[in-house]
Amino acid sequence: MENGTNKITPWEVSGRVDYDKLIKQFGTQKVTESIRNDISSYANGRMHVMLRRNIFFSHRDLDLILRDYREGIGFFLYTGRAPSLGMHIGHLVPFLFTKWLQDIFDVDVYIEITDDEKFMRNPDYTLEKTGEWSRQNILDIIAVGFNPEKTFIFQDSEYIRNMYPLAIKVAKKLNFSEVKATFGFDNSSNIGMIFYPALQIVPTMFEKRRCLIPAAIDQDPYWRLQRDIAESLGFYKASQIHGKFLPPLTSPDGKMSSSVPDSAIYLSDGPKIVEKKIMKYAFSGGQATSELQRKHGANLDVDVPYQWLYYLFEEDDGEIERIREEYSSGRMLTGEIKKILAEKLNIMLQDHRAARERAEDVYNKFKYDGNLARKMWEKIHS
Amino acid sequence: MENGTNKITPWEVSGRVDYDKLIKQFGTQKVTESIRNDISSYANGRMHVMLRRNIFFSHRDLDLILRDYREGIGFFLYTGRAPSLGMHIGHLVPFLFTKWLQDIFDVDVYIEITDDEKFMRNPDYTLEKTGEWSRQNILDIIAVGFNPEKTFIFQDSEYIRNMYPLAIKVAKKLNFSEVKATFGFDNSSNIGMIFYPALQIVPTMFEKRRCLIPAAIDQDPYWRLQRDIAESLGFYKASQIHGKFLPPLTSPDGKMSSSVPDSAIYLSDGPKIVEKKIMKYAFSGGQATSELQRKHGANLDVDVPYQWLYYLFEEDDGEIERIREEYSSGRMLTGEIKKILAEKLNIMLQDHRAARERAEDVYNKFKYDGNLARKMWEKIHS
Repeated sequence: MENGTNKITPWEVSGRVDYDKLIKQFGTQKVTESIRNDISSYANGRMHVMLRRNIFFSHRDLDLILRDYREGIGFFLYTGRAPSLGMHIGHLVPFLFTKWLQDIFDVDVYIEITDDEKFMRNPDYTLEKTGEWSRQNILDIIAVGFNPEKTFIFQDSEYIRNMYPLAIKVAKKLNFSEVKATFGFDNSSNIGMIFYPALQIVPTMFEKRRCLIPAAIDQDPYWRLQRDIAESLGFYKASQIHGKFLPPLTSPDGKMSSSVPDSAIYLSDGPKIVEKKIMKYAFSGGQATSELQRKHGANLDVDVPYQWLYYLFEEDDGEIERIREEYSSGRMLTGEIKKILAEKLNIMLQDHRAARERAEDVYNKFKYDGNLARKMWEKIHS
Repeated sequence: MENGTNKITPWEVSGRVDYDKLIKQFGTQKVTESIRNDISSYANGRMHVMLRRNIFFSHRDLDLILRDYREGIGFFLYTGRAPSLGMHIGHLVPFLFTKWLQDIFDVDVYIEITDDEKFMRNPDYTLEKTGEWSRQNILDIIAVGFNPEKTFIFQDSEYIRNMYPLAIKVAKKLNFSEVKATFGFDNSSNIGMIFYPALQIVPTMFEKRRCLIPAAIDQDPYWRLQRDIAESLGFYKASQIHGKFLPPLTSPDGKMSSSVPDSAIYLSDGPKIVEKKIMKYAFSGGQATSELQRKHGANLDVDVPYQWLYYLFEEDDGEIERIREEYSSGRMLTGEIKKILAEKLNIMLQDHRAARERAEDVYNKFKYDGNLARKMWEKIHS
């Protein structure tokens, strides 16, 4: 979908994103103060930094999710990942937020690893590669801290038998025109990619109650299709809560991309690399010299280090306000804010890697023999 | 594909079929005397009636299959069925011939039950229906007499997990243009049907040797696609041996259809019904009155009872020659040949139903725990 000068599809985000305009274009709702407070009331008054700062800014039917929760009907969470060689911090965003929601509401989480789609999308990828990436990415996801008894992580190529009867029911409801219009397929698209949307829709129907999908807004096309057909199959329309894109290191526009390594901080990047990348590549809104910076201050709207701190890495509201104040007024220099970010990031990555090592021990729980996983392997969805 | 005034696709056969022309149109080979004798030499000189009478008339690479067999490399057989409410005798033809080939060559047979395709093709079908039809049809197939230790019968919706990795490799090689051109899909085709050809192609790659597919020639489009891509995935091009269509009871043109009940004899039809259907509906090449018949004789080219006897039900070459002689000369009347057919058919159906009752006991062998079935469930194809 075009959004002013930018483009947003499940495969591409480019240009500066006008989020208010996106809400209108996609026909979604703003996450209001009242919804935020409602969620917070279930969290002993706490509020995730990404909610507080409006990073998760848009939704569909989140009010109904909260109503169902209140009424004891409950709901479940669903998110996913197309496996890749190495995850970067942008990839972690929906998982961090989903984990927080699981902690608060104590609900089931389903995480789809779309190894099939990844394999079919790129001529160079082999199933061996996408299989190995799946394993590595799952360890990073587990490290986020999901509940192993209430979280099911599944690879499409492994779990397909359980999903297929429902998938063909979904597929029967979608024709080539619709997926063509939605995803930009054409005659040269391979027939596996054309079928694949059915498999991304199926997990929204894993339980006979509402499903909430925390994800970046670029996945919206799948959910629009889901909402067109879900009720005719006896399921609920999927609810979503949409996050903004973490900008790439190198620019305030677009989203972090694995294909431009300098634009991303990988979860495996060591402290020295992180520091070097930030110092060298982070796009700055500060002035060209210290003198000019002292005089005019930084333009925070385009400053990536500030935006990253605001988005995720500086959770303390007083501290982020202090940084904003100092940096925009020119009392803080570009090198200083970059240093703050590098330190925060390295602490986070260090913790993540420690958690990732422990993840090996519970890998099988999430995929095969935790309480939820066991139940899911016994179930044929139809 | 158009063939003079008739049409042949995997879903439709109409009009009189010019089989010599089909061989040219489809680019296949004639089954020659030399190939027939070659096969017969492995069968202690016996030759299946459908081979003797050129019902299986066309092939691709059957000579290579026989060479591989001679050289000890071997081959395997693959055929299948879209499940339906009740099978008729036309449906049995490829199975009868495949079973004969298994007996002679003692090879593995794979039988795909395409419940997914059947479900997605017709808006009125539910998975409950296609599931029940699958079970019923499988019993009829087992009753044909396949070797339970060397035959694997699988439903797509159940076996998908084992096939899916290879299916997405196949799917990645086929784009919408190709399947559109091959099967006549358009923008209104559902995305499951578009993907489905991958699943019909996968079983041709179940073993790393040549696959021989005995089937009516209307399935040829799938194998043309298979032959385009098989080698690039490290497998053999599929070989086929093509049968002619058993004409419907009501006309010498087209093929027997479940959607026109009077045109078909069902495997469940009792003796009285069979007799009544043949007497009442069988299209006759005999003359309008006994007098005229005595005088001019019957036109065997359009006479369905004669064609059925020739095709399948009168295996004795001396006897079929006697019938041809008597009936075409007018010494035999229409009522008489119909009676011969009804008797032959009822004997066959009686045997079949007895075998079908015994089939219940070995159902699980074919699907899950015979030697071949067990091996196949342990195997993920990729």
